[in-house]
Amino acid sequence: MTSSPRCSVAGDRGLAALELGDLLDGRVLGSPERRGFRLAPLDRAGDGDISYATARHHIAALNAAGGIVLLRDGLVAPAELDTSCRSFVLVANPHAAFARLSTLLYRKRPVHSGVEAGARVHPEAVVDPSARVCAGASIGAGSRIGARVHVGAGTVIGDDAEVGADGYIYANCSILDGVRIGSGVIIQPGAVIGADGFGFAADQGEWIKVEQLGTVIIGDGVEIGANTTIDRGALDDTVIGSGVKIDNLVHIAHNVRIGDHTAIAGCAGIAGSAHIGKHCAIGGGAGILGHLQIADHVTIHAMTLVTRSIPRSGHYASGVPHQEARVWNFSLAALRRLGRRQRQ
Amino acid sequence: MTSSPRCSVAGDRGLAALELGDLLDGRVLGSPERRGFRLAPLDRAGDGDISYATARHHIAALNAAGGIVLLRDGLVAPAELDTSCRSFVLVANPHAAFARLSTLLYRKRPVHSGVEAGARVHPEAVVDPSARVCAGASIGAGSRIGARVHVGAGTVIGDDAEVGADGYIYANCSILDGVRIGSGVIIQPGAVIGADGFGFAADQGEWIKVEQLGTVIIGDGVEIGANTTIDRGALDDTVIGSGVKIDNLVHIAHNVRIGDHTAIAGCAGIAGSAHIGKHCAIGGGAGILGHLQIADHVTIHAMTLVTRSIPRSGHYASGVPHQEARVWNFSLAALRRLGRRQRQ
Amino acid sequence: MTSSPRCSVAGDRGLAALELGDLLDGRVLGSPERRGFRLAPLDRAGDGDISYATARHHIAALNAAGGIVLLRDGLVAPAELDTSCRSFVLVANPHAAFARLSTLLYRKRPVHSGVEAGARVHPEAVVDPSARVCAGASIGAGSRIGARVHVGAGTVIGDDAEVGADGYIYANCSILDGVRIGSGVIIQPGAVIGADGFGFAADQGEWIKVEQLGTVIIGDGVEIGANTTIDRGALDDTVIGSGVKIDNLVHIAHNVRIGDHTAIAGCAGIAGSAHIGKHCAIGGGAGILGHLQIADHVTIHAMTLVTRSIPRSGHYASGVPHQEARVWNFSLAALRRLGRRQRQ
Repeated sequence: MTSSPRCSVAGDRGLAALELGDLLDGRVLGSPERRGFRLAPLDRAGDGDISYATARHHIAALNAAGGIVLLRDGLVAPAELDTSCRSFVLVANPHAAFARLSTLLYRKRPVHSGVEAGARVHPEAVVDPSARVCAGASIGAGSRIGARVHVGAGTVIGDDAEVGADGYIYANCSILDGVRIGSGVIIQPGAVIGADGFGFAADQGEWIKVEQLGTVIIGDGVEIGANTTIDRGALDDTVIGSGVKIDNLVHIAHNVRIGDHTAIAGCAGIAGSAHIGKHCAIGGGAGILGHLQIADHVTIHAMTLVTRSIPRSGHYASGVPHQEARVWNFSLAALRRLGRRQRQ
Repeated sequence: MTSSPRCSVAGDRGLAALELGDLLDGRVLGSPERRGFRLAPLDRAGDGDISYATARHHIAALNAAGGIVLLRDGLVAPAELDTSCRSFVLVANPHAAFARLSTLLYRKRPVHSGVEAGARVHPEAVVDPSARVCAGASIGAGSRIGARVHVGAGTVIGDDAEVGADGYIYANCSILDGVRIGSGVIIQPGAVIGADGFGFAADQGEWIKVEQLGTVIIGDGVEIGANTTIDRGALDDTVIGSGVKIDNLVHIAHNVRIGDHTAIAGCAGIAGSAHIGKHCAIGGGAGILGHLQIADHVTIHAMTLVTRSIPRSGHYASGVPHQEARVWNFSLAALRRLGRRQRQ
Repeated sequence: MTSSPRCSVAGDRGLAALELGDLLDGRVLGSPERRGFRLAPLDRAGDGDISYATARHHIAALNAAGGIVLLRDGLVAPAELDTSCRSFVLVANPHAAFARLSTLLYRKRPVHSGVEAGARVHPEAVVDPSARVCAGASIGAGSRIGARVHVGAGTVIGDDAEVGADGYIYANCSILDGVRIGSGVIIQPGAVIGADGFGFAADQGEWIKVEQLGTVIIGDGVEIGANTTIDRGALDDTVIGSGVKIDNLVHIAHNVRIGDHTAIAGCAGIAGSAHIGKHCAIGGGAGILGHLQIADHVTIHAMTLVTRSIPRSGHYASGVPHQEARVWNFSLAALRRLGRRQRQ
């Protein structure tokens, strides 16, 4: 079923269990010579596949077929494992080991380097010779593109912007003037970094634009999802910490600061000047109002509306689980009745 | 008021009521010679307009003016209809007949064929001679573009992707490596198909990317809205069934499966590995959590949060209708008080 | 910290307090010769900075340092102000004055004019000689681009579209056939104006497309956010009034009408044929169902679901503020229990 051209073998020879143990700092059970050629989920892994198991309820599947399985060390007594047709690599964190392996084998890097015909690089831009700028991309005056960076077709980088080494910027992104991006950053297609923040002053019923004079600063190892937008600051900058992961269609307003290693799921929106801590997890569709302070290690559940600052780590929610519509209508009616009573 | 260049006459001669009856499998009341030249809503339709009526409350308007009206057969006794200045075409489903007519008359098809100067087609891509690739579009190695496909300006198609016959891909879309698109698919501008899913493994407080090795497979007759994003699968594929209609700014995460003929309204978000049935309707701004199973013929109301699998068809909701803010505050206060009491 | 290339001095000489008073129709306290070179927030403003203060709680900061401060006339008794190292310009609306100043100093205008090499302008398009069309942009037959308009790289403008004078259209936007845009309109990157509305007729379990034959008409002085989508009308047009400000990732469906000077925050969604009044404020993530009428001067709070027409101005809400997840679960349980009781 899987058809991606990226899902090819790890070279014709694949990887032996022994090599996997070395790469991933793990201990091999079963034949160290058994070879894996591709990654697969445990439930359909067989000969030649490399998969992983983290939880006790996976054990039934462990002895089902061939290939190599990355397994949490200590999860299963070795005697329970059937190594006749399958080898195991015991590691501390199989999911992380699997992720690391996937990156070793499949991480996209520029295949060719150089500026393709049809790309537009301003004479005052500096593009590292090992970087690739695809046809149809454009890079403005004073911008600096680091080593081994990939700039996809149709991506537009403004003036005086910076992209650090090993960045991978997909197609049709817009990176505006002055944006500074760290190293190893992945930006999925259509993302917009550095558009004007939504800043207006009210004057006799009309809105007067406040020019947005800050920029966006993005740390190392960040990933930004497709069609996500991160606005430039008004006077100060919008700052995205290192290791932050942002999903698709997320809106990050001007002057927001996101602490290192925070993850933000799809369709979330963070209003202006909100400061989010480190190691937070923001659920899909959540909304965080402006000027709030969120502590480190805060988890916000999906579709929650955050209306006050959160000074302590923990889990926070206001999303309402679905019910059958006619049942839900009863709850709504009860709530409204309660509101009327509260008022009196 | 309407100014679209697409709203032009159906040829200089227009269509006679008789021809409409033949095309739409309907019966004509009134003059079969009366001609319609353009589509219009019933409330401002007059001579030369073709409109439609489906419901009893439209009847007052039926005898108001000229032109041709597609009317549900059996809705009105013929004696009630004034055919002196208007003709009627009686059909089983006037809205569907009107839709079909709109498509016959106005469906966009490539006007010219061929690869325009300024388009970039990899020598190893195969583009059908009847397809059109606009200037500024780019098509990667190994990709196949079917007959009569339109590829809009600025659209970037990666390597080894497929677009079936009669597809219409608007400007500035990103279709990534290995994505497979059926025939007759319409993709509005800015859509991103096949970006990496949001997959990371936690390791000592940091996130390690899990390379996304699946792809996206899209059936026949699908429509995808502007700036919507559909991520590629992690190991398996993301699959969109035939006839599915997806509105703007919808987020569909990795490994999601959408059954045939399901419709998804704007700003909805569907998390990873959720499987949605056939003939479902997902309301605007709704959120569906990951790994859930939704049955066929399920309707989710706007802004509902779906937190558990839905095994039976029906209507489901959790959206809260607005109230005056000060009234709503009473309901909220009552709800919080109730929660405190529940706790005790 | 701020690094944007736009945050440069207002010429080498800057502006004297006296000049600011003239420009902004204000009265100077302190030295009229003191000069400001750049804009800064009050809390870190010093010599050479121009900042503003609107509220009483800013007063402690007013005498803290140098530079020039725009101050609300009458907010502070002149005797309370220390003018030894700072000058004040007293105006009626300091935020508006600051906004106006920011625009005077920093508003982006095309630096060069003309059609760059690598831009594609149809021979039947009319581009004002003072406009700039960046490389990689494309403009279709019959379109008219007004004086001093900037069309960013990768932006695609269809056939028979119009962009009024002084428009600034950033990179990678899609403006489709027949769209009419007033003067002084700013469109942030990735916005899509005039994609097909989400119109389908149900027929025996399948969806038949209703071709979307209207267009989008946008008034003067409008701003449209990054990756926002505004669909064309079905038969009539979608209409955005003058002075409307729309944030990022907003979805505006077909046939919607937005009254003059209404502001819409990020991630909001407005369903088909909803008519919003003038001077409204729609909060982030709010959803407005189709075919509703919203009066003038209506404020909708963040993440509110509007389900009925709103005939009177006022504040409306249904967003639920977050709680600790385990506390929120008690409220949810109480609500469900209440619903069950209501049913009986």
